[in-house]
Amino acid sequence: MHRTYVKVLEDVLDANGTIAAANRADFDRADVTAVNLMSAPGAGKTTLLERSLRWLEGVRVGVLEGDVASTLDADRIAHLHVPVVQIDTDPGFGGECHLDANMVRSALPSLPLDELDLLVIENVGNLVCPAEFRVGEHHRVMVSSVAEGEDKPLKYPLMFRACELVLVNKIDLLPHLDFDLDRYLQNLDAVHPGVERLLVSAKTGEGVEAWREWLVRAATREAVPA
Amino acid sequence: MHRTYVKVLEDVLDANGTIAAANRADFDRADVTAVNLMSAPGAGKTTLLERSLRWLEGVRVGVLEGDVASTLDADRIAHLHVPVVQIDTDPGFGGECHLDANMVRSALPSLPLDELDLLVIENVGNLVCPAEFRVGEHHRVMVSSVAEGEDKPLKYPLMFRACELVLVNKIDLLPHLDFDLDRYLQNLDAVHPGVERLLVSAKTGEGVEAWREWLVRAATREAVPA
Repeated sequence: MHRTYVKVLEDVLDANGTIAAANRADFDRADVTAVNLMSAPGAGKTTLLERSLRWLEGVRVGVLEGDVASTLDADRIAHLHVPVVQIDTDPGFGGECHLDANMVRSALPSLPLDELDLLVIENVGNLVCPAEFRVGEHHRVMVSSVAEGEDKPLKYPLMFRACELVLVNKIDLLPHLDFDLDRYLQNLDAVHPGVERLLVSAKTGEGVEAWREWLVRAATREAVPA
Repeated sequence: MHRTYVKVLEDVLDANGTIAAANRADFDRADVTAVNLMSAPGAGKTTLLERSLRWLEGVRVGVLEGDVASTLDADRIAHLHVPVVQIDTDPGFGGECHLDANMVRSALPSLPLDELDLLVIENVGNLVCPAEFRVGEHHRVMVSSVAEGEDKPLKYPLMFRACELVLVNKIDLLPHLDFDLDRYLQNLDAVHPGVERLLVSAKTGEGVEAWREWLVRAATREAVPA
């Protein structure tokens, strides 16, 4: 059973890479920077986007929302008056646990790419498979909630290694958690030494300005490693 | 691409069902109740087990730990002086995002089934795929942390429907969160009407006694729906 499964998944990953390259070419042709935003369920991706995408100086933003079910997140983003397209992963296989390049490709015709500078792709909440499937993005960013515990980098190393920026979210909860921030950052550096990190609270807004500045730099292709 | 993928996954699910039935037969032969414990990453499964498995009156417990990487959880459970076996899902495919029946089957020879009454199978942290793969368990229980937000039942309905008991964890954080417990419970009932739920805090111990009693009833096969 497993051998066939692994073989097909390898083929799927090869095919995925080809489609991801096509997506990337489309983004580059339209001069759009694409950011793949990943996290565990409930880490605060959507709330962070609500906080950060409004009035991003000089940057025209679009959002692609991946979800297993419901349009709750897309509805929240629509309130920001930015173009948003929902990808429902359910028709695939009882709910795919990640976005792949083909799902993103199928959504591109619904987005006015030529009128955008930045496309944020909010992935399905999952710390495993999204890290394995490139979708054509320029940057991979993850949101890691302190409520999830300080051991998460060690338990899901591929995800923490795949990202160039880690948004350490819900820091407003630190006084109420058994969470050793220093140990968490040591764990982070153990799996991805020196990876850029920003401490943020989507709830209070603390640290969000630095993340907004990161997005503006990414959209204008300044000084953010590709 | 997708058609082949779905077909193979259907075959995998069929094969998985066959192996799950074999596991279930082994559990029944040894008179062991198996509980599949699922949640998002960082919802508190391991901490809850640390709180609840010690001195479970008259019940001999074993634990099977599924993780993508690291033996952190297995090490924590080992401190309880109960038999624990680690399943590392990494060799499969860059880290499987769930346990399947075959992985559990491969671990059974390492467990003294005949000396156990209860086997808790701690799944990989993920709200999608674990719900799709039976492993031969008698009961499926999930841990849902209030830190993840009140919309989670609507966003991951398959998981919330698959379970017969939802442990609503981290209720000690309620005063510090924008979390409407009534709305969460309405969302839960919308996807799984009337499902049994226990409000718990693995940190303070609140509600944990009721979960311990549930486990004892399950282990002695009393009054818990199969």
